[in-house]
Amino acid sequence: MSAAVCPGSYDPFTRGHRFVVEKAAERFDRVIVAVVVNPNKSGMFTVAERIAMIEADCADLPNVQVRSWTGLLVDLVREEDATTIVKGLRSETDFAYEVPMAQMNRELSGAETFFMVTDPKFAHVSSSLVKEVAKLGGETSPYLSSAIQAALMDRIEDVRSV
Amino acid sequence: MSAAVCPGSYDPFTRGHRFVVEKAAERFDRVIVAVVVNPNKSGMFTVAERIAMIEADCADLPNVQVRSWTGLLVDLVREEDATTIVKGLRSETDFAYEVPMAQMNRELSGAETFFMVTDPKFAHVSSSLVKEVAKLGGETSPYLSSAIQAALMDRIEDVRSV
Amino acid sequence: MSAAVCPGSYDPFTRGHRFVVEKAAERFDRVIVAVVVNPNKSGMFTVAERIAMIEADCADLPNVQVRSWTGLLVDLVREEDATTIVKGLRSETDFAYEVPMAQMNRELSGAETFFMVTDPKFAHVSSSLVKEVAKLGGETSPYLSSAIQAALMDRIEDVRSV
Amino acid sequence: MSAAVCPGSYDPFTRGHRFVVEKAAERFDRVIVAVVVNPNKSGMFTVAERIAMIEADCADLPNVQVRSWTGLLVDLVREEDATTIVKGLRSETDFAYEVPMAQMNRELSGAETFFMVTDPKFAHVSSSLVKEVAKLGGETSPYLSSAIQAALMDRIEDVRSV
Amino acid sequence: MSAAVCPGSYDPFTRGHRFVVEKAAERFDRVIVAVVVNPNKSGMFTVAERIAMIEADCADLPNVQVRSWTGLLVDLVREEDATTIVKGLRSETDFAYEVPMAQMNRELSGAETFFMVTDPKFAHVSSSLVKEVAKLGGETSPYLSSAIQAALMDRIEDVRSV
Amino acid sequence: MSAAVCPGSYDPFTRGHRFVVEKAAERFDRVIVAVVVNPNKSGMFTVAERIAMIEADCADLPNVQVRSWTGLLVDLVREEDATTIVKGLRSETDFAYEVPMAQMNRELSGAETFFMVTDPKFAHVSSSLVKEVAKLGGETSPYLSSAIQAALMDRIEDVRSV
Repeated sequence: MSAAVCPGSYDPFTRGHRFVVEKAAERFDRVIVAVVVNPNKSGMFTVAERIAMIEADCADLPNVQVRSWTGLLVDLVREEDATTIVKGLRSETDFAYEVPMAQMNRELSGAETFFMVTDPKFAHVSSSLVKEVAKLGGETSPYLSSAIQAALMDRIEDVRSV
Repeated sequence: MSAAVCPGSYDPFTRGHRFVVEKAAERFDRVIVAVVVNPNKSGMFTVAERIAMIEADCADLPNVQVRSWTGLLVDLVREEDATTIVKGLRSETDFAYEVPMAQMNRELSGAETFFMVTDPKFAHVSSSLVKEVAKLGGETSPYLSSAIQAALMDRIEDVRSV
Repeated sequence: MSAAVCPGSYDPFTRGHRFVVEKAAERFDRVIVAVVVNPNKSGMFTVAERIAMIEADCADLPNVQVRSWTGLLVDLVREEDATTIVKGLRSETDFAYEVPMAQMNRELSGAETFFMVTDPKFAHVSSSLVKEVAKLGGETSPYLSSAIQAALMDRIEDVRSV
Repeated sequence: MSAAVCPGSYDPFTRGHRFVVEKAAERFDRVIVAVVVNPNKSGMFTVAERIAMIEADCADLPNVQVRSWTGLLVDLVREEDATTIVKGLRSETDFAYEVPMAQMNRELSGAETFFMVTDPKFAHVSSSLVKEVAKLGGETSPYLSSAIQAALMDRIEDVRSV
Repeated sequence: MSAAVCPGSYDPFTRGHRFVVEKAAERFDRVIVAVVVNPNKSGMFTVAERIAMIEADCADLPNVQVRSWTGLLVDLVREEDATTIVKGLRSETDFAYEVPMAQMNRELSGAETFFMVTDPKFAHVSSSLVKEVAKLGGETSPYLSSAIQAALMDRIEDVRSV
Repeated sequence: MSAAVCPGSYDPFTRGHRFVVEKAAERFDRVIVAVVVNPNKSGMFTVAERIAMIEADCADLPNVQVRSWTGLLVDLVREEDATTIVKGLRSETDFAYEVPMAQMNRELSGAETFFMVTDPKFAHVSSSLVKEVAKLGGETSPYLSSAIQAALMDRIEDVRSV
């Protein structure tokens, strides 16, 4: 049974992320969406919140599981009995950034990374740009599911009212 | 009447920035140089200082105005009755970085970004590199007007004598 | 009165080209779409055919004119009393290719090139890729106006029946 | 049963190509290596020769088949009941070149392209560079199987003795 | 007598760095490996430790000296009676980042930068990626000399046991 | 005695080429400018003409020799007892194009390539763009020595009067 890991910080999960997970889920028996935890960086949403949001967003994809991960990505790949990492790429610069990690992961464990080109509709969409737009009062519904957009609006309100 | 916005942090305004503003001023009825304020980041010069320096540097360009801005850039574009953002690009990497913002600004409001290629003389000049060179005692007169260079030297002296 | 030139081979004119011309027409008083003739290269459509197709496609844009040009682009810019060239860019590689010409045009005559980022929907659309897809029997309606698509289909039929 | 197509001109098949096919064969039930025929371009080896060389080189990979193809790649993907195209990438420039085709293939039929980063050992190896080196008398054994290297040497001899 | 400077933070010195220094040492009479000190950033190893590690690693290269430097790189070049800076490049993005500094150094003092392409085996190896892999328990022996790898392991242990 | 080879087609030799040769000549005992002959491509100037033009242009650089070469570049490097190839780079795309050849040359013979960043004044100047501008009647004196510019004008006249 083939399995693939889709790693990311997903803070929050965008429609661009969903696009990649969906395409992977059509091609692999099992897809593990891994919220990678960076212990030195706190995000807008907790890891538990991110997992819950992704689970809700991908509820229609039965072969997708969501979990967190701290440590070498290749150890997760092994633990999940997967051999492949799937990532979306938005630009040549993205590609340049990802190549060394893909090489390193191959050398460390034989895990291969498959890169997909994001749907052009989402090629400019990143979690950080979406958060910035939302904070400044811009419309983010084209880039986020309605549930995630609502959660983002709430969080921004909370921060403001503190 | 056509208007264009030239956004930047301009900390400080370089001859490369001046080149872009000048070319825009020859092509648009009105050019608004917007010192974009990032509330989480303090610069070497205050926003008021930066505005004063740019105003002095562009005094010979009657259709150029200088102001600050906090918030979505597209809201400034609307407020100023402009439809165009003009930015200089120094490299392919610059371009890659700017594309998502240009797409986002178009989607949020229809504001279009026109990218200009910087004069090769200034293709390696950024505010941050110029500040670094100045701090280490290097010559910055090719990259800054004499007034701005003097202000930069003064500021570095002040910091050192603290 | 401000004028801009949109040069290209336009063999044929795509929806991506139309997007750029439209945005330019909203920002300049007059836009000249210039079918640049390369005497050493014959296209799928004659220059006269390309002009007719663009004129039909842009009939709703009253400030757009279409013409052919052989020679230095900057001489056309001067002849048309324009000061600006407007081009769409699809990728970093496109940008790298265009930069030397933009610099050269500036040095030769002071003509400035404004680069726009293509609508992501059309970022993968070029005349040559569309022709290739059409020749192999693929669907090209998302990339061409219906009139231009019909002309392309006819031309491909003609070539086959020879 | 999942299937993937690895398209290329393979004139000739290099160790870099083999690397990609092997990784795909470990991850898909069936891999179709497609020698894409460009009717306007004749290669150093005929299509039949290329197929024979690849079949010999991949004889140890039981789930790999080799065939030729003329036409839209997505039609081959459909004919073979595959949903995925797998390609190796050597550089950012390669990536820039491949992105429009990947988008086009997705729009035409839903075929998704998975890009792999080539093994660094082969990142500079292309069929054309290898042929050029061989013609000029350089050593090509690091880049080609011994059988393919021998075939290349023979072909170059033949051309010279004509 | 020709001399070249190889600047870097070298925190720690990798096999990729060694490759560049070795090639420079074969081509210049004297090579100065300069550990550039950024007073605002503390590394994993002190500057003295880094110098000692590089000296040990390059003990077989008699024309290589190691030293630290704070200030404009071009002042070091002058102080050492050198005229050339030698740097390894791993990717197009690396190149884009280095170009403005190379231009600046040329303008400030006439120092010329020679860029070398790293051995593909090390194209994905950077000090920061190696540290990250080591912290997460991955194998780093392909990227570091055994002495430096041991020092890195010790340091990570120390940090953990605090 | 250290020697470096500066290869190119030099059809014709531009001020950008001269810049690179000059910097190399300051750093190596001997510099060999090699006009690389592509037997399948005829240029605007014969190889003998190109050599004569470069020799005249570099007459003030006593340690520069000019010659032609057909074959593997690394064989010339060996024949000339050199170990280094020096090339100018104008852009990230140039770099991407040159990397595979630099790796190949290293693997074939240990010849190392040193890349220099062209003077920004000449970053947009290539022999082919200069010829195109000249053919269309544009001014090329900023890009060519006066002797080479005169030769180019003559040649274009000759072609026209045929």
